[in-house]
Amino acid sequence: MDDDLTYFEDLEVGTVARFGSYAVTRDEVIAFAKSYDPQPFHLSDDAAAQTHFGRLSASGWHTCAMTMRMLVDNITERRQAGLGSPGLDELRWLRPVFPGDVLRVETELLSKRASQSRPEMGSFQSAVRVFNQDDALVMTMQSIGLIRLRAAYPAQASVPEAR
Amino acid sequence: MDDDLTYFEDLEVGTVARFGSYAVTRDEVIAFAKSYDPQPFHLSDDAAAQTHFGRLSASGWHTCAMTMRMLVDNITERRQAGLGSPGLDELRWLRPVFPGDVLRVETELLSKRASQSRPEMGSFQSAVRVFNQDDALVMTMQSIGLIRLRAAYPAQASVPEAR
Repeated sequence: MDDDLTYFEDLEVGTVARFGSYAVTRDEVIAFAKSYDPQPFHLSDDAAAQTHFGRLSASGWHTCAMTMRMLVDNITERRQAGLGSPGLDELRWLRPVFPGDVLRVETELLSKRASQSRPEMGSFQSAVRVFNQDDALVMTMQSIGLIRLRAAYPAQASVPEAR
Repeated sequence: MDDDLTYFEDLEVGTVARFGSYAVTRDEVIAFAKSYDPQPFHLSDDAAAQTHFGRLSASGWHTCAMTMRMLVDNITERRQAGLGSPGLDELRWLRPVFPGDVLRVETELLSKRASQSRPEMGSFQSAVRVFNQDDALVMTMQSIGLIRLRAAYPAQASVPEAR
């Protein structure tokens, strides 16, 4: 056990965190779209001008990926004893993301719950909000995270020695 | 108006479509993770061996991106008069995706509804299911799509001429 880590017991419902600064570039928007979302408005300004987007915008999935990068950098910094994620709810793309935008993230811990079936872990639900440089909300979602219980680990570790 | 396109009126609730074949490669898994999800179990086999994943697995967001590519290729083929997506609900990562896996998609049209505020468009909800080569479900979500109404377009086009 690494006492330096953040465990389930350390999470406080209502905590708001703000972090990240992701500069969106034209090259990256086009490269992501070519691989994963080759719709015309994500590939060129000319094609985008003929659509409701008006100009080149990032794939919504690219916005998710850039957001994940900011989340992972933050989790790594806080040394969270995470166990991955089973998924998320209510993802909404609210505004287009354009080359030149700078994105940032705000998270709010909505709830947490110890697992009934797996006493070594708990889950928590966070509201994730992504803003651009004008403080306009571009994406929201409710993510689910899994995390270790501090209490479960010393008990588990001692079992083999006790036998 | 392009009569070749698929419009809101053409969508039939209950329709199931199966398509796509996406070969997941080690290089692509690592490249995506380096950019967007640099957690150890998405970057190297050695690091993954020390976690519950056991071996190198794709970022869940990479699975989303690969799924989007299969969806876009399919939409393009069917020439759907789409207007993008406001988001999705209940995304769940059910099993890890590994290099060597081959993914495919199944969609089921759950519901459709003409917009009250914007008579030229409607929305529809689809269940999206992603399977690997063993027909095991790796990811599910409910996506929301926006699409043009065929009926709205000739009417709109005639308004400027009538004035």
